[in-house]
Amino acid sequence: MSKYAIGLDFGTNSCRSLIVDIKNGKEISTHVFNYPSGESGVIVDHRDPNLARQNPDDYLVGIEVTIKEAIKKAKSANKKFSPDKIIGIGVDTTGSSPMPVDAEGTPLCFLKKFKKNPAAMVWLWKDHTSYAEAQKITELAAKEHPEYLAKIGGVYSSEWFWSKILHCRKEDAELFNSAYSFVEICDWIPSVLVGNTKPENLKRSICAAGHKAMYNEQWGGLPESNFLEKLSPGISDLRKRINYKAYTSEERAGYLSKEWADKLGLSTEVSIAVGAFDAHMGAVGAGIKEGTLIKILGTSTCDIMISPNNKKLTDIPGVCGIVNESVMKGYFGIEAGQSAVGDIFLWFINNLVPEKYGKTQDEKFLNLEKAASKLKPGETGLMALDWNNGNRTILVDVRLTGLLLGQTLHTQPPEIYRTLIEATAFGALRIIDRIEENGVAIKEVINCGGLAIKSPLIMQIYADVTGRPMKISRSEQTPALGAAIFGAVSAGKEASGFDNVEDAQKVMTVSNKIYKPVQKNYLIYKELYAIYRQLHDNFGTKNSNENMFNVMKDLLNIRDKVRLEK
Amino acid sequence: MSKYAIGLDFGTNSCRSLIVDIKNGKEISTHVFNYPSGESGVIVDHRDPNLARQNPDDYLVGIEVTIKEAIKKAKSANKKFSPDKIIGIGVDTTGSSPMPVDAEGTPLCFLKKFKKNPAAMVWLWKDHTSYAEAQKITELAAKEHPEYLAKIGGVYSSEWFWSKILHCRKEDAELFNSAYSFVEICDWIPSVLVGNTKPENLKRSICAAGHKAMYNEQWGGLPESNFLEKLSPGISDLRKRINYKAYTSEERAGYLSKEWADKLGLSTEVSIAVGAFDAHMGAVGAGIKEGTLIKILGTSTCDIMISPNNKKLTDIPGVCGIVNESVMKGYFGIEAGQSAVGDIFLWFINNLVPEKYGKTQDEKFLNLEKAASKLKPGETGLMALDWNNGNRTILVDVRLTGLLLGQTLHTQPPEIYRTLIEATAFGALRIIDRIEENGVAIKEVINCGGLAIKSPLIMQIYADVTGRPMKISRSEQTPALGAAIFGAVSAGKEASGFDNVEDAQKVMTVSNKIYKPVQKNYLIYKELYAIYRQLHDNFGTKNSNENMFNVMKDLLNIRDKVRLEK
Repeated sequence: MSKYAIGLDFGTNSCRSLIVDIKNGKEISTHVFNYPSGESGVIVDHRDPNLARQNPDDYLVGIEVTIKEAIKKAKSANKKFSPDKIIGIGVDTTGSSPMPVDAEGTPLCFLKKFKKNPAAMVWLWKDHTSYAEAQKITELAAKEHPEYLAKIGGVYSSEWFWSKILHCRKEDAELFNSAYSFVEICDWIPSVLVGNTKPENLKRSICAAGHKAMYNEQWGGLPESNFLEKLSPGISDLRKRINYKAYTSEERAGYLSKEWADKLGLSTEVSIAVGAFDAHMGAVGAGIKEGTLIKILGTSTCDIMISPNNKKLTDIPGVCGIVNESVMKGYFGIEAGQSAVGDIFLWFINNLVPEKYGKTQDEKFLNLEKAASKLKPGETGLMALDWNNGNRTILVDVRLTGLLLGQTLHTQPPEIYRTLIEATAFGALRIIDRIEENGVAIKEVINCGGLAIKSPLIMQIYADVTGRPMKISRSEQTPALGAAIFGAVSAGKEASGFDNVEDAQKVMTVSNKIYKPVQKNYLIYKELYAIYRQLHDNFGTKNSNENMFNVMKDLLNIRDKVRLEK
Repeated sequence: MSKYAIGLDFGTNSCRSLIVDIKNGKEISTHVFNYPSGESGVIVDHRDPNLARQNPDDYLVGIEVTIKEAIKKAKSANKKFSPDKIIGIGVDTTGSSPMPVDAEGTPLCFLKKFKKNPAAMVWLWKDHTSYAEAQKITELAAKEHPEYLAKIGGVYSSEWFWSKILHCRKEDAELFNSAYSFVEICDWIPSVLVGNTKPENLKRSICAAGHKAMYNEQWGGLPESNFLEKLSPGISDLRKRINYKAYTSEERAGYLSKEWADKLGLSTEVSIAVGAFDAHMGAVGAGIKEGTLIKILGTSTCDIMISPNNKKLTDIPGVCGIVNESVMKGYFGIEAGQSAVGDIFLWFINNLVPEKYGKTQDEKFLNLEKAASKLKPGETGLMALDWNNGNRTILVDVRLTGLLLGQTLHTQPPEIYRTLIEATAFGALRIIDRIEENGVAIKEVINCGGLAIKSPLIMQIYADVTGRPMKISRSEQTPALGAAIFGAVSAGKEASGFDNVEDAQKVMTVSNKIYKPVQKNYLIYKELYAIYRQLHDNFGTKNSNENMFNVMKDLLNIRDKVRLEK
């Protein structure tokens, strides 16, 4: 008899429920809810482009609407389905997206007094108001606790937990003093479903804690009081109230509360898994295992790997985060990424491509894709750096910008488009190299996310540039699928779920398409990658003093050779 | 009583007559004739994009039509005008544009046998079929006669006289053997008007000879027989038949022949000046004098200066040409240039600017101009190299390409447009610096050509980047005006003309607009120019091994500072 699990996926503009058959990973039904608050779910302030908040009430409405509708759709799609066969729910969210709560775990923005105060809401991952605090944290940690930074790529971000808390205190002391604690939404939402939001009782996510709050059991959890006091005297009181033990998402946060069971038409035996971030659960949904790199390709890229935690793993310079069990039990989670991939293509298409190539963004995308597919590697004579939004891995530097070179008076948009794709592929290869240089072998690459599904050109270029097959995950919503897997694992074998993630993945995840590298293309890209490296190292590090006289000539020589052969 | 001179200007697609009042330089009338042959006057071969030829018959028709029509217009515009008051005609043409002629000076393509043979026509300046021969000439000269190259910037071009002759011999030996001599069209057209086209009698232009045929009195005229024999055994026979003495355009080629006087309704007392190239006569029309740099701004740029030939002038590395009296008597002519200026803007506008900015090229140009004018120096955070068509001066390297850096996800077309203008301005400043470093002081800059008149933005940026006032020539057709000046000088004072160019320029040339540098902008551009230099030297020479880590950051810092002040 089939059992089912629900993956609840909370994104930036909407949330989704996905009902999955745990026997085979078949996605029975899904429903999406667009957040009603703010601009597409984001509360903004036109005086301050750095501000991005969210109304947690949108999540509560979203849970109810999407689960009810997904159940309705599942019933009509599948006669065998019934809601009582749902055994678990997993939750993935954006992050770091913390919010201030009172002693009961109620968001402060639910209180009348703070209702309209953006500081009382969820500080969304992409809120950058806390850049000054981030810098302060990085500087102090570099001096006094370099170990705090070693696990997170060397720089503490304005997007992360402590930066936001410090800035909240500075911005609105009254509100800050009314906050009993701060919680990540990936911790809060499961606690709501369980019916126990008291901060002391939260089973917080190791993924959020380790990657964003400098939590590590190696130094006893959160950063030491002394360190926090130096950043903001008096703040260690708060530390006590958020001093938690963190859990992996195989763990059960609890069972569905009576209140929510009634509301959703589910039983109180549904297991609610500890939450985690979307990319990490997405990696599980895409089939991550030792030796497998999961690439989540969207506006930016997130690269996730795991490495067994019974073997020593050295810090990997420039990699955003290495956190024990942040993806699954028994493994270090390794997170890297590129700050802009799809965003670079969108920037180019929306700003620099004439209507000759199409009237809408989609038409332009398709026509450029078509024209660029006809070009051979090296034929453009162009080279780009993929830094329009800085470089997250391996340079960890937001003060880097884009570069395009090789253009003549004949250069056409499809050539530039192809070059930008190649640049992101070279960036991806640089990350692969860095990970492997540090002893983590990559035997397989599985891609998921919009771009991986939409663009055969991108995937073929990635295969040809890296010289590795690019597999594509079957699921188009791997975070929700990953969340459903954790729902089923948290329910446990005794409830017809699974003992562990590996067992669940064996039946629930599939990659169904492979782009194979073409040897001839790979050899040309190898030459081009050397040029990329030369530019990358000379513009992106202080360690290279290379003359560049060869760059334009090498590109022209490769171009001429390729054109001659065509 | 007013006297008049005619400037006859032969361009790539059309020719023009300009009738000028020599008392005050007033342009009484003008008429343009579009060449009927080929594509817009250029005979092309779709199997070989390097080929560009011209039918000399187009010139003959053009002379007749444009002079007659200009006279007609002048009569109706000015009651005092009559054709018998015309005292001289000057001729400027493109170059190097040689053609094979028989012993009478008749173009071989006028003979029935060779009528359709492109090799028998004018080898237009932009014909690049002879690139292999150019390379051979450069290599041999570098080894055996470095002095030949020292005066022409170090590299002999495929666009020039000897390359074309050698290629003609290789391509069509029969035709080559039927050629008694080869003549530049700037030499042939005056000889036609004079009615004496025999090669032995030609007064050839020192401008064409010195800049394109390695002619220099220092080594007795043309390159020595031995040198030519090594390039193409047996060719020194031809050398004898083109072994000429070269003249400046103050000299009279002769008086208008009876045949042409009758045809045009002019007297046989009209003096015909020795011809020269358009840029050189344009410089005279724009008011060149010692210390004045003339910039002719079009699709590419030509920079012309003069330096008194009674003072020693060292070779200036990377400057295209230094030829004694190539511009006017008593001075070395110095020629430099940028291989693409307007062409870079056109490339960008025609390929990378969406219709949002206008439907036509002109609309886009105007709207970008408007939007880019609102930006402050440094505000874009961008930097470009102006090498989309290689670099003529000072790097003399066609194997260089464009570069754009600093782009983010927010970069807009007007920012890139402004950056491309700035890049050409930095390129212009690099040339100014190089000339001044070699002891030729530049006290004044006068601009002419389409871009100088059409774009206040470009001229203001040039003023701000160089920290020098940019003057604009009043005339919109300075080559034709310069030709008219030479017409009047060749007539001489005795015919109510002038004794010399300086006297004619005093009354006939005016600059009527000045763009003054803004000190604040200049200071920011000084910082940006240092970054341009860093990129220029590291990508364009082998002598620089600089790390580039500062480049993107410096640009962002300048941008942030400028935006904060705005």
